Amino acid sequence: MELSIEKASIEELAIEGVRFSSVESGIRYANRRDLVLVELADGSHTAGVFTKNAFCAAPVVVAREHMLACTPRYFLINTGNANAGTGAQGLKDARESCQALASIAGIDEREVLPFSTGVIGEPLPLAKLVDGLPVAHAQLGQHALTSAALGIMTTDTRPKTSARQVEIGGAKVSIAGMAKGAGMIKPNMATMLAYVFTDAALSKATLESLLKSQVNKSFNRITVDGDTSTNDCCLLSATGRSAALVENESGECDPLFEKALSEVFQELAMEVIRDAEGATKFVTVRVSGAASVEECLAVAYTVAESPLVKTALFASDPNWGRILAAIGRAGVGGLVIEEVTVRLGDTLIVEGGARAASYTEEAGQREMDKQDILIAIDLQRGSVCETIYTSDLSHDYVSINADYRS
Amino acid sequence: MELSIEKASIEELAIEGVRFSSVESGIRYANRRDLVLVELADGSHTAGVFTKNAFCAAPVVVAREHMLACTPRYFLINTGNANAGTGAQGLKDARESCQALASIAGIDEREVLPFSTGVIGEPLPLAKLVDGLPVAHAQLGQHALTSAALGIMTTDTRPKTSARQVEIGGAKVSIAGMAKGAGMIKPNMATMLAYVFTDAALSKATLESLLKSQVNKSFNRITVDGDTSTNDCCLLSATGRSAALVENESGECDPLFEKALSEVFQELAMEVIRDAEGATKFVTVRVSGAASVEECLAVAYTVAESPLVKTALFASDPNWGRILAAIGRAGVGGLVIEEVTVRLGDTLIVEGGARAASYTEEAGQREMDKQDILIAIDLQRGSVCETIYTSDLSHDYVSINADYRS
Repeated sequence: MELSIEKASIEELAIEGVRFSSVESGIRYANRRDLVLVELADGSHTAGVFTKNAFCAAPVVVAREHMLACTPRYFLINTGNANAGTGAQGLKDARESCQALASIAGIDEREVLPFSTGVIGEPLPLAKLVDGLPVAHAQLGQHALTSAALGIMTTDTRPKTSARQVEIGGAKVSIAGMAKGAGMIKPNMATMLAYVFTDAALSKATLESLLKSQVNKSFNRITVDGDTSTNDCCLLSATGRSAALVENESGECDPLFEKALSEVFQELAMEVIRDAEGATKFVTVRVSGAASVEECLAVAYTVAESPLVKTALFASDPNWGRILAAIGRAGVGGLVIEEVTVRLGDTLIVEGGARAASYTEEAGQREMDKQDILIAIDLQRGSVCETIYTSDLSHDYVSINADYRS
Repeated sequence: MELSIEKASIEELAIEGVRFSSVESGIRYANRRDLVLVELADGSHTAGVFTKNAFCAAPVVVAREHMLACTPRYFLINTGNANAGTGAQGLKDARESCQALASIAGIDEREVLPFSTGVIGEPLPLAKLVDGLPVAHAQLGQHALTSAALGIMTTDTRPKTSARQVEIGGAKVSIAGMAKGAGMIKPNMATMLAYVFTDAALSKATLESLLKSQVNKSFNRITVDGDTSTNDCCLLSATGRSAALVENESGECDPLFEKALSEVFQELAMEVIRDAEGATKFVTVRVSGAASVEECLAVAYTVAESPLVKTALFASDPNWGRILAAIGRAGVGGLVIEEVTVRLGDTLIVEGGARAASYTEEAGQREMDKQDILIAIDLQRGSVCETIYTSDLSHDYVSINADYRS
């Protein structure tokens, strides 16, 4: 079964029923793609999850409204300006951008979902954005996902895409996605901006349940700095153009398709962490032996977001005392620290509340010198396991965020 | 009444009944005071609060035990080694250090409270510590608080002391304290190490309630990096040598004394923040208009610990969008972001979910250029107000914690 999932080349793969374009509209910088269109063929379904930050951006408010009213046909994405903290004017601007595209495409404005990312609190330069729309609409094409992924970048250093192809009952099904995000990353239901497309025929209800479960295993398991964005959105669209029978009559999904979909979500989320602001390490924090998902995640995030653990990771310092101190303050009631074990990769470093007898500083150093680091914590009080992903805290993180007005 | 609290010179002030000493015992570095003794006269009372980190250091375990069994006569404090994550051997070492001092002083070992701060996970160099005890005991003196404050430093750049003197009914009462701590600072019931002494006559019960209320207004309202130490302790001792009537028969404290005590706790806690690792700013976060203390503190700490807010503070960037984004993710149920106002100092920057109409970038910049910055957030949904104190996130923070094995 494994063999029948193909890691597809994003340049060659097209998702039947989806077209992309990206142009330079000069919203914030010159010579930079900052306006991206996605067109979904009639009959496509889309599911979306949005930031749970109480302070959410105008386009998020409008996108939510539009999804309730209509089936989306276009995503209108701009970078350079988040249109967040812009009050009533921001909502008006987001709506007017949708109207402008709707009149070009000859559709209802509520069939357009707006997305913005960039600086918070500045008025959206609506005129520039609207000026870019006719060319963007004219250039829509099936093979432009790579340049669209470039167009949605802000502090990202590279575009993030992922694609898979599977064959189900002799018919091909394709999945492709793109994401952006490098800082202000602790998505709460979705990351900054992520879009996944498939030509599978899927009902709206199945699409929504797939999106929720996929997001909970991918974008909801990553953190760069614990800062949840005001603009987080994750969308999953299905055009239904593939002849494969992906969903049966009871709404169950083909397992091979679900696995391929899961790989795309995972790959995109991992790419966000690998490209995290100033990151020099890719860190997996796995907490097992917990009594509940909640305490697993409390421990994992406390370790992953501890500035002291993150600076030790940056320094490649096997400073297990900081890991243990973070576990100890995670708020797990009745935790017996003497029963906790901590491993760096395969190396046991902590047991019995102290350095493991078998541990040597050299063995710890070998693990920390790697670029991909696993911190495996076993609480030994239950059977629940959760894994999250994070990056280190480097001088570059400070520089990027001291210089960049997000 | 205000005038009768005197800010006393720590060099000249002595607390009748308390003696200090500090010596170089070579625990981790040469030529550095790293062993501090405090002696309390017979009849003194002491109240203590300790870290709530589930992973707590051996000396904390032993100090708690000893306080339950006896009235403390000595504090034995070493820096350079936290004796944390040291398992059974660590407990044995902490007890043996108390025994060694007890045999010199001719007291019960449980009348000694041990305290350690420094690197986590290394065995305590007990022999060096014990070797230093005879000289330390011989040098005990009334005027050595300043050098004791030097002796308890680790990454601190300066000693932290505070003293006050008041006159009650014609008799003088003195209060003096010292603290250390610059990183791994989000005390949960107490900061790294803080000791306050008074010659007032106070019952044990009053002392305990005073300590709790003072700590909750000082050390429990500061954060550098959100990392709670394994060794946090705060002690308040009263020798009863002053003739002043500080406590009446119903256990009520003289308000002037309480105010002076509060000033000492505040001053020490603020000193910890001013000397925070890599700090270039002293930041006050005041949250008002909340429905409960819990939501006040949730908002205040989320803003104070946001890496994006902290890097903006380091850059003197009036990036109010990051403040609003942090407020939005603080988990306050039903928060209406449009009703929240945010001020930098006296400058209104946010209202109605957007930049205030009256706000200018110049006015914001003027506030951020200051070294002492006030972020005042009004949630406008209740009457509770809380204030916490924090520092910024600078390159030096990263350097210090990438280089220092804590």
